[in-house]
Amino acid sequence: MLLSHLRAISKATFTKPLSLSSSSMASTEETLRKTLADKLSAVELQGNTVRSLKASSAPKPDIDAAVQALNALKLEKTSIEKSLQSLLSASDSREAFRQSVVNTLERRLFYIPSFKIYRGVAGLYDYGPPGCAVKSNVLSFWRQHFVLEENMLEVDCPCVTPEIVLKASGHVEKFTDLMVKDEKTGTCYRADHLLKDYCNEKLQKDLTLSSDKAAELKHVLAMLDDFSSQELGAKIKEYGITAPETKNPLSDPYPFNLMFQTSIGPSGLASGFMRPETAQGIFVNFKDLYYYNGNKLPFAAAQIGQAFRNEISPRQGLLRVREFTLAEIEHFVDPEDKSHPKYAEVADLEFFMFPREEQMSGQSAKRLRLGEAVSKGIVNNETLGYFIGRVYLFLTHLGIDKDRLRFRQHLANEMAHYAADCWDAEIECSYGWIECVGIADRSAYDLRAHSEKSGVALVAHEKFSEPKEVEKLVITPIKKELGLAFKGNQKKVVEALEAMNEKEALDLKAALESKGEVEFEVCTLGKTVTINKNMVTVHKEIRKEHQRVFTPSVIEPSFGIGRIIYCLFEHAFYTRASKAGDEQLNVFRFPALVAPIKCTVFPLVQNQKYEEVAKLISKSLTAAGISHKIDITGTSIGKRYARTDELGVPFAVTVDSTTSVTIRERDSKDQVRVDVENAASVIREVSEGQRTWEDVWATFPHHSSTAADE
Amino acid sequence: MLLSHLRAISKATFTKPLSLSSSSMASTEETLRKTLADKLSAVELQGNTVRSLKASSAPKPDIDAAVQALNALKLEKTSIEKSLQSLLSASDSREAFRQSVVNTLERRLFYIPSFKIYRGVAGLYDYGPPGCAVKSNVLSFWRQHFVLEENMLEVDCPCVTPEIVLKASGHVEKFTDLMVKDEKTGTCYRADHLLKDYCNEKLQKDLTLSSDKAAELKHVLAMLDDFSSQELGAKIKEYGITAPETKNPLSDPYPFNLMFQTSIGPSGLASGFMRPETAQGIFVNFKDLYYYNGNKLPFAAAQIGQAFRNEISPRQGLLRVREFTLAEIEHFVDPEDKSHPKYAEVADLEFFMFPREEQMSGQSAKRLRLGEAVSKGIVNNETLGYFIGRVYLFLTHLGIDKDRLRFRQHLANEMAHYAADCWDAEIECSYGWIECVGIADRSAYDLRAHSEKSGVALVAHEKFSEPKEVEKLVITPIKKELGLAFKGNQKKVVEALEAMNEKEALDLKAALESKGEVEFEVCTLGKTVTINKNMVTVHKEIRKEHQRVFTPSVIEPSFGIGRIIYCLFEHAFYTRASKAGDEQLNVFRFPALVAPIKCTVFPLVQNQKYEEVAKLISKSLTAAGISHKIDITGTSIGKRYARTDELGVPFAVTVDSTTSVTIRERDSKDQVRVDVENAASVIREVSEGQRTWEDVWATFPHHSSTAADE
Repeated sequence: MLLSHLRAISKATFTKPLSLSSSSMASTEETLRKTLADKLSAVELQGNTVRSLKASSAPKPDIDAAVQALNALKLEKTSIEKSLQSLLSASDSREAFRQSVVNTLERRLFYIPSFKIYRGVAGLYDYGPPGCAVKSNVLSFWRQHFVLEENMLEVDCPCVTPEIVLKASGHVEKFTDLMVKDEKTGTCYRADHLLKDYCNEKLQKDLTLSSDKAAELKHVLAMLDDFSSQELGAKIKEYGITAPETKNPLSDPYPFNLMFQTSIGPSGLASGFMRPETAQGIFVNFKDLYYYNGNKLPFAAAQIGQAFRNEISPRQGLLRVREFTLAEIEHFVDPEDKSHPKYAEVADLEFFMFPREEQMSGQSAKRLRLGEAVSKGIVNNETLGYFIGRVYLFLTHLGIDKDRLRFRQHLANEMAHYAADCWDAEIECSYGWIECVGIADRSAYDLRAHSEKSGVALVAHEKFSEPKEVEKLVITPIKKELGLAFKGNQKKVVEALEAMNEKEALDLKAALESKGEVEFEVCTLGKTVTINKNMVTVHKEIRKEHQRVFTPSVIEPSFGIGRIIYCLFEHAFYTRASKAGDEQLNVFRFPALVAPIKCTVFPLVQNQKYEEVAKLISKSLTAAGISHKIDITGTSIGKRYARTDELGVPFAVTVDSTTSVTIRERDSKDQVRVDVENAASVIREVSEGQRTWEDVWATFPHHSSTAADE
Repeated sequence: MLLSHLRAISKATFTKPLSLSSSSMASTEETLRKTLADKLSAVELQGNTVRSLKASSAPKPDIDAAVQALNALKLEKTSIEKSLQSLLSASDSREAFRQSVVNTLERRLFYIPSFKIYRGVAGLYDYGPPGCAVKSNVLSFWRQHFVLEENMLEVDCPCVTPEIVLKASGHVEKFTDLMVKDEKTGTCYRADHLLKDYCNEKLQKDLTLSSDKAAELKHVLAMLDDFSSQELGAKIKEYGITAPETKNPLSDPYPFNLMFQTSIGPSGLASGFMRPETAQGIFVNFKDLYYYNGNKLPFAAAQIGQAFRNEISPRQGLLRVREFTLAEIEHFVDPEDKSHPKYAEVADLEFFMFPREEQMSGQSAKRLRLGEAVSKGIVNNETLGYFIGRVYLFLTHLGIDKDRLRFRQHLANEMAHYAADCWDAEIECSYGWIECVGIADRSAYDLRAHSEKSGVALVAHEKFSEPKEVEKLVITPIKKELGLAFKGNQKKVVEALEAMNEKEALDLKAALESKGEVEFEVCTLGKTVTINKNMVTVHKEIRKEHQRVFTPSVIEPSFGIGRIIYCLFEHAFYTRASKAGDEQLNVFRFPALVAPIKCTVFPLVQNQKYEEVAKLISKSLTAAGISHKIDITGTSIGKRYARTDELGVPFAVTVDSTTSVTIRERDSKDQVRVDVENAASVIREVSEGQRTWEDVWATFPHHSSTAADE
C-alpha cells in the first residue's frame, strides 16, 4: 500500500501511453497497421490469383494484368511499410538530439561517469565544474524560492539511518523492484525492464504485428507499474523472454530491496541503510520542529540532501542513478483547514494540467487556470494548489520550457490508499515525460506510522479560546453480567463492545431497547454472541474539552534535483551555424540565474594593457561575487565566443581598448559598448536580475561586430 | 605509512601535552606533586616522632610541641592537596561552560541527536533550523572565499565508492582504529580510549601519584597515536585495564576498518564503501580537470560533501561523528615550482604558529609573520604558506577567536613518508585543541597511487619552447662478462647495476677507472660481489627532449565543517545578566555573515497598524534575500530580544510607530531610529557587510531604550 509513495520519485511514467504528443501518433500508427494488414492479405490474395491463372494456362493478357495488379499492390504495401517504419523511428531523431546534448555535456565536463579511470560504476555520475555550478545555483534558488520566501524550517539529517526508522516508514518491507536472474549465470535483471524492452522491440521492429497484438503490447506497457510479481512472471513466460546476453531461461520474479545496506558501529549487529529519501528525517523531528514553531500550524520543514537507491540495472543516464540529491518539503497542516494564506498569489497562473479524468478518457493535458482547478475540486485543496503553482514558477524561472511541462494527477491505482491527492510535475525530454517533482497530500500517514513505532505522540494541539462542550458516546460493558454469561471469553466480548464506532453503538442501543437482546459479532472469537440489555449501557455524555488533539496532515513537494537539471540541459540546448557556415555551434541558453559562469572576460588580442584591464574587471566581479573566467588564450575571438556559448555563459566582456569594453549577450549575439569602470556593475545587475538585457541594450551604444569577431 | 594522512581529520591532538595553556600548568602540577610528596613524608616522620615521644613517656611540653608541629604539617599538606585538586579540576569549569553552550544549542535546535524518538544513534546528529542556516552560511562563504576567489574547479562526486578506488588510496588496508572486545560480552571499545581514560583518571583523581608515575602516564598520553597494536595491548595488560562496565578481561587490540561497507548492485558481489573523504573523487578525475584547465598548472579543484566514518565508540558530541561534511581542496602544482602568484597578499599576516621545533623543545606556540615562516623554511613552500594564510582569514572572518587559533606543524612521526610538510589549523575549545583544518603538501603520492592501480597516466606536461638537450647517465651492464662471472645470479646483479642512482653510478665509474675493480653490494643476493671494468660501462649521453612529463604535487587543505561550526558556537557564546539582574541570558555573538537569521522584526505591541509595517519590512527583506523572522507574540520586548539574542540574530527591528522604527544591535544593545522605508536597506547593507554598525550608529539618531524595553 505504501508502494505508490515509495516509488514516487523512482518511477517516471515513461510507459504511460497518453502523453501530449503521443496520443495522435498512436491513432496514426493503428490506421497504418490496419492498412498494412489489409494490403498484405490483398497481396496474398492477388498472388493466389496469379498462381491459379498460370496453373490453368489462362490467356497471357489476363496473366499480365493480374501480375501488374500484384506489383501495384506490392508497391503500395512497401510504401505503407515505409510510413510505418518512419513513424516508429521518430524516437531515432530524439536519440540523435540527445546524443548531441550528452556529447557536449560530457566533453565540457558538465558531468563525468564516476570513477572513469577504473571503468566506472553504472548509475554513478560526478558533476564536473560547470555542472556543479549549475547544481549549486539551482539549490540556491530553491532555498530562496521556497525556504526563505515561505519561512520554512530547514534541517540537515544524516544519510546513515537505523533500520527501525525505515521499518516504520515501510521501506524495509516495500521499497523493492522485481528482479529475475539468469538461471545459469546468475546475472540479475529488472523484470519489468525485460518485458518493456520486449514490447518496445516488437512494436518498433515487427511491421507484421497485427493491430490487436500491438494494442495488447501497448496495454502491457501501460500496466507495467501495476503488475504483481505473478503477473510479470506469467507475461515473461508467455512471451518466451530469456536472458538478453545468454538466452538462458530466467527465474521467477522476486522482490529486491533497493536500499544500500550497511551496519552501524563495530559489532555488526546494528543494521542500517543509506536513506532512500530525506523526508523521514523531518517526520521523526516533528515534535521538536512544532515546538520550535511556537506550537503553531501550518508550518513547513525542508531538507536538501543525498538519497540512495541501489538500482538493479541503471539506465537513462542522469535520470536513473544510484545516488542523487533530493530537495523535500513537508508542509504540516490542520486536516480540517487546508487553506493557504498566499494562495491568491498563484491562483491566476495558467499552465498544462493533466487531471485523472482526462487521462482515463484518453484526452490530452490541457491549459488550466490553477484557481479553476482548485475551485472545481480537481485539485484537492488550496495548499496543494499553492505548491503546484510555486513549483511551476520555480521550474519556469530555471529555464524549463513551459510548453514541455505539465502537472499530471496520479490515477487512483497509483496513489497510496491514505493519500488525499497527488500531482507530478512532468518535464518532456528525449526520454519522454519525466517525473521531476512529486506534490502529494499524504494525509496523516507518516506521522502516525512513527508515532506507533516509537511510542512518541507526534500530534498538534488546538487550544480552544474557551472550553467547548462536546457530546461523547459512552459505552459501559457491565462486566459482572458479561462474566456470568461468557466466562473465559468475557475479555474479548468487552473489547469488541468498547471498539464499536458511534453508529454501531447507537444501532446496538436501539436494538436492545426494542428487542431486549441482539446478536453481536465478536471477530476475535470468530463467532456471534447474544447480548442482552443488562450486559451493556450506551449513553451520551456532555464533556468539557479545552483543546483538540490531532495528527497533522502533510503536503509533500519532493524535487529530484538531478532530473530537473538534466531536463534543463535538454531544454536549454540548441545549435546554430558558425559565421562561416562551416560548422554547427552548440549553445546552452541558461538564464543568468542558472548559468555556471555569468561572464567571460577576454582581451581581444594578447596585449599587456588589455590584460590589465581584464584583471581589473575580474577583481570587481570577484568582489561582487559574480562567477566568471578570464580567457587570455590567443585564439580568435569567434572561437572564444563559441567556447563560452557552449558552457551557457550569458555575457562576454571583450577588452579592445583601455577606456571602454564591449559586452556581448549570448543568444542575440548583440554587443554594447560600456566604460571600463562600469563594466563589472552592468554585468552584476544583469546577472542578478536587477536589470534586463533589453534595458542594457537600450541604454548603451551598440557595437557592431566586425567580420573577424565571429 | 599512509596512516598519518588517513587519520588527518580524525585524530585531533587532544593528547598532545605541549599546548599553549597547558605547558605552564604542567610545571606547576609537577611542583605541587613533589611538594605534596615531601610534605607526606614529613607528616609521617613527625608522626613517628610523636609516637616515640609518647612511647618513651617524654615530658608533656615536648610531646605537645611535637603534636603541634605535626598538626601544622597536616594543615600544610591539606592546603597543598587542595591546590593540586583545584588545578586538576580546571577541566570541571570547562565542562560547566560546555554544558551551558550545549544546553542552549540543543534547546534552540541548533542541533538534535538524530532519530531521537527512537533513542538515537551515537555519533549521528541533525542540524535543526538555526544550525542548518549557520552551516549553509559557512559553506556559502567557503565557496566565495576559496572557489570563487581562486577560480577553483568545483566538482561533486558520489558518496558510494567502489572498493578498487579505496584500495588504491590505501583506505581498505589502513583506515583502521585499534579495537578491544570484552571477552565475555563481546562489547567493543577503542583500545586507545580505554588507555587514555585510565591515564586521565589516575592523573586527575589520584593525589598520591608520584611525579615520576605522573610523568610516565603523561608520556603514554602523548604517545597514544603512535602506539602499535602490540604496544597498546602491553600497556593495557600492564595497567590491568578491564572492560569499563563489566570489569571482564579484554581481548588483544586488533584493527577495525572505519569505513561503512555496502554492496553495489543486486548481485552482492561488488563491494563498495561510503567514502571516508571527498579527495579521492578529485584525484581520479585529475586527467579531465587538467584538460578542462587548458592543460595548465597550477590549478585547484574543490569539493564539498558528506563523508563517513564508522567510529567504534563516538564521543565528544559534534566533534567525533559518524557522518560529517568535508570541504576539500586539491591544489595541483609543478613540484619544481611551488611559488604562488598571490602569496604576497598574505605574507604580512601574523598569527599563532606552532612549528615542529617548538613542540619538540617544549615551548609554546608563538606569533609569527607568515612571510617570515616561509622565508626561514619553517613552512615548506609559498603555496602551502598561501593556503595557511587563506585558512586563517577564512576562520577569523567566521568569528573564530584568533587567540584560540593556532597552526600546528606535524611532527615527523605524524607525517606520511611522502608528505613534504603538513600544518593543522587547531582551534581551542572546551575539549582542548581541536584539529579543524589540515593543510598538507602530499607531494605526488595520490596521483601516483591511482596511476599505478588504474593504468591511466595522471601526469602533466611542460612543453619546452624549443627542444632541450638533456644530459642522461647511461649504465650498460655487459651481460656476456657478467654471465660468465655470476652464472645464475647474473640477472640480480644486472638489476642492481641498473638500479643505481646517478651518484652511485659515478662513484662506481670512478672506482673502476682508478682500481679496475670494486666490491658491489647486491641486496637481492644479500652479499657483495666483485665487479671489474669489463662488466659494465657508465657514460653520459646528450638527448633532445621536447617536453617534461611529471606527476604534479598536490597541496590539500581539508576542512572539517562540523568541527569548525562547533568551535564557532563555543567562541561565539557568552552570557550576560538580564536588566532586572535576576537571570543570566545567553548570547551568540555570530558575525552577520554566519548568523542563522539576520534580523527579527517585531511590533512593540500587538496592533494591526504595527503588524502591517512589520509585514512591509519583511517583504522588502525577503526580496533582498535577507533571512529574518517576524515575532508577533505578545511577550515583553525584553523577552523577545533575549530570545533573538540566544539565536545569535545580530539585528532587531522594533515597530513602535508607522513612520519610523528602531534597529537594535545584539551585542552593544544600542538602538537607532530609522524611517520605515529605509529600514530594510539598512539591514541589508549591514548584514551583507557593505556597511558597519559603527557607520549606522554614526548616521542615524540614537534611540534610548526605556526601562520596559529590556
